[in-house]
Amino acid sequence: MTPFPAHVHAERRRRAAAQATEAGLDGVLVTPGPDMTYFLGYTPSAVTERLTMLVIDAGYPDAATAVVPRLEEHDLEIGAVGGVETLAWSDGEDEHEVAARLLRDGGRYAISDTAWALHVLGLQRAAPEASFEAVTRALPLLRAAKSPEEVARLAAAGAGADAAFREIVRRPFAGRRERDVAADLAELLREHGHEQVDFTLVCAGENGADPHHAASDRVLREGDTVVMDFGGLADGYGSDTTRTVHVGEPTALEREVHDAVRAAQQAGVEAVRPGATCEDVDRAARAVIEEAGFGEHFVHRTGHGIGLTTHEPPYMVTGETTPVGPGMCFSVEPGIYLPGRFGVRIEDVVVAFPVGVPGLEDVPDGAARLNTTTRELVVVE
Amino acid sequence: MTPFPAHVHAERRRRAAAQATEAGLDGVLVTPGPDMTYFLGYTPSAVTERLTMLVIDAGYPDAATAVVPRLEEHDLEIGAVGGVETLAWSDGEDEHEVAARLLRDGGRYAISDTAWALHVLGLQRAAPEASFEAVTRALPLLRAAKSPEEVARLAAAGAGADAAFREIVRRPFAGRRERDVAADLAELLREHGHEQVDFTLVCAGENGADPHHAASDRVLREGDTVVMDFGGLADGYGSDTTRTVHVGEPTALEREVHDAVRAAQQAGVEAVRPGATCEDVDRAARAVIEEAGFGEHFVHRTGHGIGLTTHEPPYMVTGETTPVGPGMCFSVEPGIYLPGRFGVRIEDVVVAFPVGVPGLEDVPDGAARLNTTTRELVVVE
Repeated sequence: MTPFPAHVHAERRRRAAAQATEAGLDGVLVTPGPDMTYFLGYTPSAVTERLTMLVIDAGYPDAATAVVPRLEEHDLEIGAVGGVETLAWSDGEDEHEVAARLLRDGGRYAISDTAWALHVLGLQRAAPEASFEAVTRALPLLRAAKSPEEVARLAAAGAGADAAFREIVRRPFAGRRERDVAADLAELLREHGHEQVDFTLVCAGENGADPHHAASDRVLREGDTVVMDFGGLADGYGSDTTRTVHVGEPTALEREVHDAVRAAQQAGVEAVRPGATCEDVDRAARAVIEEAGFGEHFVHRTGHGIGLTTHEPPYMVTGETTPVGPGMCFSVEPGIYLPGRFGVRIEDVVVAFPVGVPGLEDVPDGAARLNTTTRELVVVE
Repeated sequence: MTPFPAHVHAERRRRAAAQATEAGLDGVLVTPGPDMTYFLGYTPSAVTERLTMLVIDAGYPDAATAVVPRLEEHDLEIGAVGGVETLAWSDGEDEHEVAARLLRDGGRYAISDTAWALHVLGLQRAAPEASFEAVTRALPLLRAAKSPEEVARLAAAGAGADAAFREIVRRPFAGRRERDVAADLAELLREHGHEQVDFTLVCAGENGADPHHAASDRVLREGDTVVMDFGGLADGYGSDTTRTVHVGEPTALEREVHDAVRAAQQAGVEAVRPGATCEDVDRAARAVIEEAGFGEHFVHRTGHGIGLTTHEPPYMVTGETTPVGPGMCFSVEPGIYLPGRFGVRIEDVVVAFPVGVPGLEDVPDGAARLNTTTRELVVVE
């Protein structure tokens, strides 16, 4: 991905330190993956059993230190665009003891969700007085509010996914297998700027009733409702879109279900208002589906955050009382699944209260969609 | 990868339960990744923030239970070749509370190294009386002893890597960039049975002195020593080979260093004898390099286990007193790195005390190499 300038990473680390302080934490421990890309601009070529970890001390936001295997010290120095100190350890040393030297006695730390158990448990052993909490619990919003530049990348990823959708629906469906359409979608995503395709679900008829069905040898035929859920990363940022199409003319029930999901999705997007919480978005979408009589068939949460990964906080789910804040980007994707028959899901990525995003209209009191293809039921051949 | 039959996974789970009992543990907690592939034959299409975890209770080896997101229950049921119970949880539930129901009060558990911090810390919260240790520390040899069928797959992966090496050295080096040769190597690995290429390091001249240099725009030229370290997965099992070649005629020093590394590698392989420990293998290789006067320039451990991943226990490193046991597969890869000048590394994967491996001679009291290309210094053009 195109790197952000060094000052962006430095500013993000300062913000992390401030959030940590506010939450009563002594710092943030960042391991390879999206968190390290975000705070250091460094993405090791492989995540291995050797500990690499950035320590952001809440009291010294401008003096972060990266613990790194000696063999990879040079990679980090040239790979990290932000200036941080390195503390290298060699094979045979206890890397957790080395890292523990950077921790405060009895300190409380947030640590990356994806840090390996090997390392979390190693740190607990090496620093028995310290305590650790996963970032998603301790500081769920660490990467949640996207900068205008980040939203612009998410919008570009979404536009790429939209372009893929516009092309796929002009191709034949009937007579081809789910996996053929899925392969086409993957190719189209790559053609439209995605360096990584994470999923291209194509779920025809009864397979659409399983929200996580991938794509099989099932041949598409006239009369099928087809759920297509696809996404990946474009210039480092995620896309995640679902549209449900129909091969030939739909039945009245298929239209009814699709209408209910479309209205629910609209309600979810409209629920993004100043003061709204994440669970409000879920509740708004769910209420429409319940009203339509399909409540028991909406079996998953309404959405998830998206950024450097396609699934991250905040989650639009019952019990998530975090207020929706400016720059938060997340999916709104209600669905109805009728076992053995068919399913319908409609998903857009939206940004809350965008202001000053290149190429996007300001919506200071609501959500802007980053996907703009039609949400009407498209009939394909 | 070609799945193993269900009884293989069941037998592996029984062995894990026995090892856990012997180590005073109450069970093994297995999360997605190589451990889950090994014990369940199930590899989710993506590892996400939603908890999927197989619980093997030491006392009930034939009744393992997989905690799984309800949305993926069906995938697991069709994907897991071994018969296990499932315990599904739904969005909005506390998945760690659900999983904790399967744990014994105050139980001690080994958990997959790669389990997310989010989940380890979540389990600690939901089961505060239980304790957890990473598999690599608690049961490092859980996957270390390979069955003859596994060794055969590793041998096939090694043979594919060897074929790639034999072809690459017939191609021109001088005038091409490191990354061009690296790209060729990756393509050759794929041609020779690899479904995944994990690394193709090509390190010319001074870049070879950095053991983890990847591949750059540096153009290869007459006089360069070139370290090539490459590997990936073929039918689910890893290859990892290093050969050092020379563009044109080497100097006396280059030959001397290469000879020292070759002798060290041979000594490491020959150290695999009944009663030897992992650190003995390291010590044997290291002694040869020290003897040759280059001790300070051998800056890493001598090797690592290989199987469903290209880096796993056991590690051939100082302090690792685990005895080398039958069926253990690991790299032997000493190197000498002269900063600013050049480096040499030679690496084979070996299997300890193989007996009854299809296509491999029995060596009940030593190691068999799974790489068979020449370890002489090959001159390329």
